[in-house]
Amino acid sequence: MNSFGNNFCITLFGESHGSCVGCVIDGIPSGFSPDFEAIDSDLLRRSPRAAAFSTSRQETDSYEILSGLYRGTTCGTPLTVIFPNKDSRPGDYAFTAPRPSHADLAAFEKYGECCDLRGGGAFSGRLTAPLVFAGAVAKQILSGKGVSIASHICSVLDIADQPFDPVSNELPQLDPMFPLVEASVRRPLEALFDELRASGDSVGAVAECKIVSLPAGIGEPFFDSVESVLSHLLFSIPGVHAVEFGEGFGFGKLRGSQANDPIIPDRRTATNRSGGINGGISNGMPIVFRAAFRPVPSIAVEQDSIDLKSGEAVKLTITGRHDVCILPRGLAAVEAAAAIGILDLLMQDKGRKL
Amino acid sequence: MNSFGNNFCITLFGESHGSCVGCVIDGIPSGFSPDFEAIDSDLLRRSPRAAAFSTSRQETDSYEILSGLYRGTTCGTPLTVIFPNKDSRPGDYAFTAPRPSHADLAAFEKYGECCDLRGGGAFSGRLTAPLVFAGAVAKQILSGKGVSIASHICSVLDIADQPFDPVSNELPQLDPMFPLVEASVRRPLEALFDELRASGDSVGAVAECKIVSLPAGIGEPFFDSVESVLSHLLFSIPGVHAVEFGEGFGFGKLRGSQANDPIIPDRRTATNRSGGINGGISNGMPIVFRAAFRPVPSIAVEQDSIDLKSGEAVKLTITGRHDVCILPRGLAAVEAAAAIGILDLLMQDKGRKL
Amino acid sequence: MNSFGNNFCITLFGESHGSCVGCVIDGIPSGFSPDFEAIDSDLLRRSPRAAAFSTSRQETDSYEILSGLYRGTTCGTPLTVIFPNKDSRPGDYAFTAPRPSHADLAAFEKYGECCDLRGGGAFSGRLTAPLVFAGAVAKQILSGKGVSIASHICSVLDIADQPFDPVSNELPQLDPMFPLVEASVRRPLEALFDELRASGDSVGAVAECKIVSLPAGIGEPFFDSVESVLSHLLFSIPGVHAVEFGEGFGFGKLRGSQANDPIIPDRRTATNRSGGINGGISNGMPIVFRAAFRPVPSIAVEQDSIDLKSGEAVKLTITGRHDVCILPRGLAAVEAAAAIGILDLLMQDKGRKL
Amino acid sequence: MNSFGNNFCITLFGESHGSCVGCVIDGIPSGFSPDFEAIDSDLLRRSPRAAAFSTSRQETDSYEILSGLYRGTTCGTPLTVIFPNKDSRPGDYAFTAPRPSHADLAAFEKYGECCDLRGGGAFSGRLTAPLVFAGAVAKQILSGKGVSIASHICSVLDIADQPFDPVSNELPQLDPMFPLVEASVRRPLEALFDELRASGDSVGAVAECKIVSLPAGIGEPFFDSVESVLSHLLFSIPGVHAVEFGEGFGFGKLRGSQANDPIIPDRRTATNRSGGINGGISNGMPIVFRAAFRPVPSIAVEQDSIDLKSGEAVKLTITGRHDVCILPRGLAAVEAAAAIGILDLLMQDKGRKL
Repeated sequence: MNSFGNNFCITLFGESHGSCVGCVIDGIPSGFSPDFEAIDSDLLRRSPRAAAFSTSRQETDSYEILSGLYRGTTCGTPLTVIFPNKDSRPGDYAFTAPRPSHADLAAFEKYGECCDLRGGGAFSGRLTAPLVFAGAVAKQILSGKGVSIASHICSVLDIADQPFDPVSNELPQLDPMFPLVEASVRRPLEALFDELRASGDSVGAVAECKIVSLPAGIGEPFFDSVESVLSHLLFSIPGVHAVEFGEGFGFGKLRGSQANDPIIPDRRTATNRSGGINGGISNGMPIVFRAAFRPVPSIAVEQDSIDLKSGEAVKLTITGRHDVCILPRGLAAVEAAAAIGILDLLMQDKGRKL
Repeated sequence: MNSFGNNFCITLFGESHGSCVGCVIDGIPSGFSPDFEAIDSDLLRRSPRAAAFSTSRQETDSYEILSGLYRGTTCGTPLTVIFPNKDSRPGDYAFTAPRPSHADLAAFEKYGECCDLRGGGAFSGRLTAPLVFAGAVAKQILSGKGVSIASHICSVLDIADQPFDPVSNELPQLDPMFPLVEASVRRPLEALFDELRASGDSVGAVAECKIVSLPAGIGEPFFDSVESVLSHLLFSIPGVHAVEFGEGFGFGKLRGSQANDPIIPDRRTATNRSGGINGGISNGMPIVFRAAFRPVPSIAVEQDSIDLKSGEAVKLTITGRHDVCILPRGLAAVEAAAAIGILDLLMQDKGRKL
Repeated sequence: MNSFGNNFCITLFGESHGSCVGCVIDGIPSGFSPDFEAIDSDLLRRSPRAAAFSTSRQETDSYEILSGLYRGTTCGTPLTVIFPNKDSRPGDYAFTAPRPSHADLAAFEKYGECCDLRGGGAFSGRLTAPLVFAGAVAKQILSGKGVSIASHICSVLDIADQPFDPVSNELPQLDPMFPLVEASVRRPLEALFDELRASGDSVGAVAECKIVSLPAGIGEPFFDSVESVLSHLLFSIPGVHAVEFGEGFGFGKLRGSQANDPIIPDRRTATNRSGGINGGISNGMPIVFRAAFRPVPSIAVEQDSIDLKSGEAVKLTITGRHDVCILPRGLAAVEAAAAIGILDLLMQDKGRKL
Repeated sequence: MNSFGNNFCITLFGESHGSCVGCVIDGIPSGFSPDFEAIDSDLLRRSPRAAAFSTSRQETDSYEILSGLYRGTTCGTPLTVIFPNKDSRPGDYAFTAPRPSHADLAAFEKYGECCDLRGGGAFSGRLTAPLVFAGAVAKQILSGKGVSIASHICSVLDIADQPFDPVSNELPQLDPMFPLVEASVRRPLEALFDELRASGDSVGAVAECKIVSLPAGIGEPFFDSVESVLSHLLFSIPGVHAVEFGEGFGFGKLRGSQANDPIIPDRRTATNRSGGINGGISNGMPIVFRAAFRPVPSIAVEQDSIDLKSGEAVKLTITGRHDVCILPRGLAAVEAAAAIGILDLLMQDKGRKL
C-alpha cells in the first residue's frame, strides 16, 4: 500500500506532525556511494523556503540514515532515511471542520476518529521529502548509466514557459530553484505569485519533465508500460491530478497524419509526439510528460465546510502561511517519481546490478 | 508484468495473430454467477464492427471459459477465458519496416528479431477483449454493491459532447454503441468520421468516465491512491496517452479560491472539481476522469520509415481497413480499467467477499 | 494467489474435471527455443502411468501452447500452456461426504456449495502438470547458465536410498522414471508397492533434491531467502508436508562443533551440512533439500466421514484406481519448484536476460 | 525483498551494528490500541538475557515508534518501529576470515567488500526484534478474532518435551521464558546447557507451535497455501533449516490407512495428523507445525576458515559470549512468523477491517 517497485522498491511512512517521515529503499545495489551534495540539492528544491512562491515556515529538511550505509557506501541492505519533524505546530491545524479539497474528509471516512490529520498527516506534502531523497538516489544510479532527467515550470494560469525540445537528446541549463526554459518568464510569474500572496489565494500549475538517453526497449507491453509505472508514481504526489505523455490530450485534436512520428535512419523519429514511448515501451527518443498540480487548497479566504460532529454548515478560514504555488517545489517530486519508475523498469530488464 | 491487482488480479496473455488472446482472473469470489449477456454486451461495444467509425474486418469476439466456472457459477478458483483468433490475416502486416507510432520499433528493440509483431502482437488492441471481459465481471460485482460506471465520447477534434454532471449521483441513459450525453452531437461526428475514412486518415479523441455510489474511504494515501491505480490500468490500454481526474489539467488555469470544493452537509461537496478524490481517497462524490486516445496510427497515407535490415529510409503505406477513431470501441476498455481498479481497491478494504 | 514469482512468474489455473488445467509463464526471455523433448520427458515422469507404483488411469498429458511462441521461439510475451482434460470421469468422485485428509472439507468451508471438487478440483495433483511444464522451461534456462537439478526417492517407510553426496559438484546418473542413487533399492520398493496395491493402501515418502553449479550470492537476507522461496513453492505441491535444507531436522540432534561446515580454500566448505545456503544466500556449494509427501489419501479402505447435509457420521469407501505412492511422479514437481524458485532469484540479481 | 505480506505487510531494515534495526508495518487497521505490555513481554522472551541458556550481553530491546500511532491508537498509516543499537561492540567481530556456517562468506560473495558484517549485519538474529514486535501486534489483532498461538521447546538432542495435543482446541499454560509442556524436562535441559557452556559449544533444537480457533477456509489452493506462507516466513528466521506441518517427515513412515484423519460430526477430525491444513486450506482443527534451528554457529572451539584476501587456510576462534541454544529465544520469532502469516491470509479473505 505504501510501497512501490518490484526491483527498486520504496516504502514511505510517517505523518506530518508525528516524530518523523521517512522511507525504506530496497533493491539498491551494494557498493554505491551516494552523492549527498546532490541529494541535499534536490531536497533544497523541495524544501519550504522563504521565497516569493513559497511558505515562510522554517521546515528544515535535515535527515538521518538509519540503515544500509557502511563507511559511506551502500552495503546491499535496505537504505532507510528519516526526516525528523522538528518544527511541528499542531495548533495551526485544529481539526473540527474538514478543509475543502484537502484529504481531511476522505481520511476521516476511511480511518475514523483516530486518524492523525495534524498538518495533513500522512497526506502531507511533507511525505515528498523521503520521496525526493529516494528519487535523488535513483537519479544518481541512472546517471551512472547515462540517463538524465530535468523538469521545468511549464505553465501557471496563462503564463507559459517554452516547452522542452522533445526531439533533441540534450537538456537545457535551468535554475534549479526556479527552472524555466525561457528565463524572461520568471518576472511575470513572480508578479503573479506576489499578487496571489497578497490576496491569500493560490494557483495551480503544470510541470513538464524530460528524460534523455534512456535505451529503447524499457517497459512492458501491458500493465508495466512506461506510462503506467510513471503515472502510478506521479499520481501519488499530493496535488497531481493530470498526467500526459507526448502530445497527451493534444492527441484529441489531431488526425493520424498529423500525429504520427516519421521514422528516420538511426532508428530515430523526426518528431516525438509519442513522448518517447510506443506500445508502453521506450523507443529511444526522449521521454516527455506533463503533470498538473491543483492549486494548494490551503487559502486564506473564508470557505464553506461542516462541523463533523453536528454535521452543520460552518465557515472556515485557514490561517498560517502556505505555498502560493506548489510547483517550483513539486518539480523535485516529479523528477523523483520519474527516476524511481524508470530505474525500477530498467532493473526489471537488466537486474539489480544493471 | 502482464498481471495487475492485489486482490482482484488479472493476467493477460496472447498475441493478435497467435492462436488466441485471453486472461486469468484471480480473486473472484466463489458463488458468483456471471451475467453473460451483460459481458457480451460490453464485448460487442469493443468489437470491430462494420460501423461508420470502425473497421470492417469481421473479427468475432467469441470466447471460451477454460476454468473457474462450475454449473454457471464461479467456484473460487481463477476464471480463465480465451478469445480464439479466427480470422487472422498475417499478410496485412508484413514486417520489413516499422510502422510510425506503432509499437513495432520499440518492440523490435526490446525483443529482437524473434518478436511476433503480426497484427501488433501483444501490443494489439485485441488484448483489450479479455480486459473488457474481466472488466464486465468486475462491473457486475461492483453493481452488486451499488457502484455503477458509465463513459461517453467527450470530444473529437473540436466537436465536444456535453460533459457528465460531476455532482449528481445519477448516470444518464446512453446509446451503448455511440454514447453521447447530447445526442445531437452524433451527426457531426459521423460526418467527420466519413470524411476521415474517405481520406484514409484517423483521429484522436477524449473519453470521459464517471463512477457513482462508490463509498468514501476507498484507496490509499500514497502509492495506491485511486488515481494511481486507475491511471496505471488506463495507460495500459493501447493508444491512451493522457489521464486526468476532476478538473485535471484545468487546475493549471485556476486559483485556489476557484478550485476548492465547498463542503456541505451530508458530507458532500457543492462542486466536484476534485473528481471525487482527495488525498488519493474516494470522498463519496462521483469519481470523474478523462482519458485521451491518440489517433489510430494505421493510416492509408504514405509515411516515412526505415528498412530495419539496411537502416535506409523507405516509404510505407499501410493497407487493410482500420478504425477511423478508436474511441467508441475504446470506451469499453476505459470502463473495464475503471471497474478492475476500483474493485481491487474495494477488496483491499473489505476482503474478497466484500 | 495463484501466481508466484517476481521475475519468472507463473500463474496456475484449472480444475481436475473442468476443460483443462494450465499456466501462464511471464518473464520468460525472448529468443529462447524450448526443447520440447526435454519438457515431454519431465511430463512423462509426472504422468500417471500403468506402472507398479502408480495409477492405471490413462490421463494423457498432451498440451497446447496458447501464446508466447512464434516460429518455435519465445517472443517475449507470456507463454501460456493448457492441458486439456480428456478422460474426466466425474462419476468416480461424487461428493456427498468429504474424503478424509483430502481438501474436500476445507474447500467446502472456504468456497461453499459452489466449489468444484470433482477429481480434487483445483486441489488436484493434476495442477502439477503445468507446474512441471514451467519447471522444465526454467530448468532449460538454468541449464544454459550451467545450473543442474536432480532428485531421487530418498526413503519410503524404512527403505532408504543412499543420499546424494552433498559436497560433490556432480549429479549421479539416475533412471528418470524410478530415480535411485543405489539401484538395488528398487526391488524392495517395488515389492512394497505391490503389497500396498494388493491391500488397497498407500504410503508416504521423502524426496531429496540437489542443485549444482549455482553461483554464490543468490537469495536475499530475510524474506526472499533461498529456503523461503523454495519452501513456498514446495509446500504448494499437493501432498508435501515437510521441507528441510542440509541437515534439516537433524540439526536438532547436533552440537555446533558437529554442525558447522569448515571453510577451506577456493571458498568451499569441507562438509555441506548447511545445504549450500547460509543466511538465506547460496554459498556456492550444492543446494540440498528434502521434502516429505504424505501417503495418497485416496485408499480403498473403508473410512469414517460425515454427510455434509445431515452432519451425521457415514462410512466412505473410495473406488477407482489411485497411486500407491506419489513420490516417483512427485519428483518432477519437486524439481520444477526448485527450478522456478532458483530462476526467479537469479533473475532478481541478473535481470531477465541473465 | 525485505518485505512480506499482501495485506498485513512488514518491511525489515537495519544491521546489527548500524544505528538501529526496525520495521514498517503496513496494512494495520486504524483504531487499534496496541497492548505494549504484551509486546514487551514477547520482546523480553526474544531478548538476550543472562540466563542459563543464553548470552550475557546486555542488549536492551528498547524501541521507538516512529509513525502510525496517534494518542496511543493506530491512525491507519504504516506503523514504524526502530530498536536503536546501543551496546554495539564491533571489536568482537573483526572480519578477516569468514566464520564457518555464518552468512559471512555468502554475504561477501553477494555484496562484495562493502557489505557490513559486523555482528552479522543484516543477517543478525537482532533483526528478529522488529519481527517479534510485528508478530506481537499481529497476535493481538488475531486474539481479537479468537485466534491464539503458543509454542514450546519440542526437543534438544535426545531430550524431548511432550508434544502439544494436536486435537484439543486448548493451549496449555507455559512458562513464557522456558516453555515446556512437561515441566520436568527443564532440569535435564538446563544441565545440558550448562555442560555446553562449559565446553564452549552450542546445540540445535526443534520448536513446536500450535494455532487454535482459526476458522476453516483460510489459505489458498496453490501458492498461498497456509504451509507456503508460514514456511516462507519461518525460513526467514536466522537458523531455521526445517519446517514440517502435522506429521511432517513422519508421513514418510506411514501408510495411508495410518495417516488419514477420520472425519467426525461437527466437521472435525478424530486425529489431526494433517496439522489443521488440507489442500493448503485451514480445516478448522488446530494448526500444528515444527521448525528446527541449527546450533548457533558461534562457538568457542577452534575452527577452519580461510583468509579472504590471500585465500589461504587459517584457524579461527570466535570470542565473546554467545547463545548455547537459540531456541528459547527463537520461539518468540516462530510465533511472530505464524501470527504475521495467518493474519495476512485472514485479511486476504476478510479485508483489512476483518
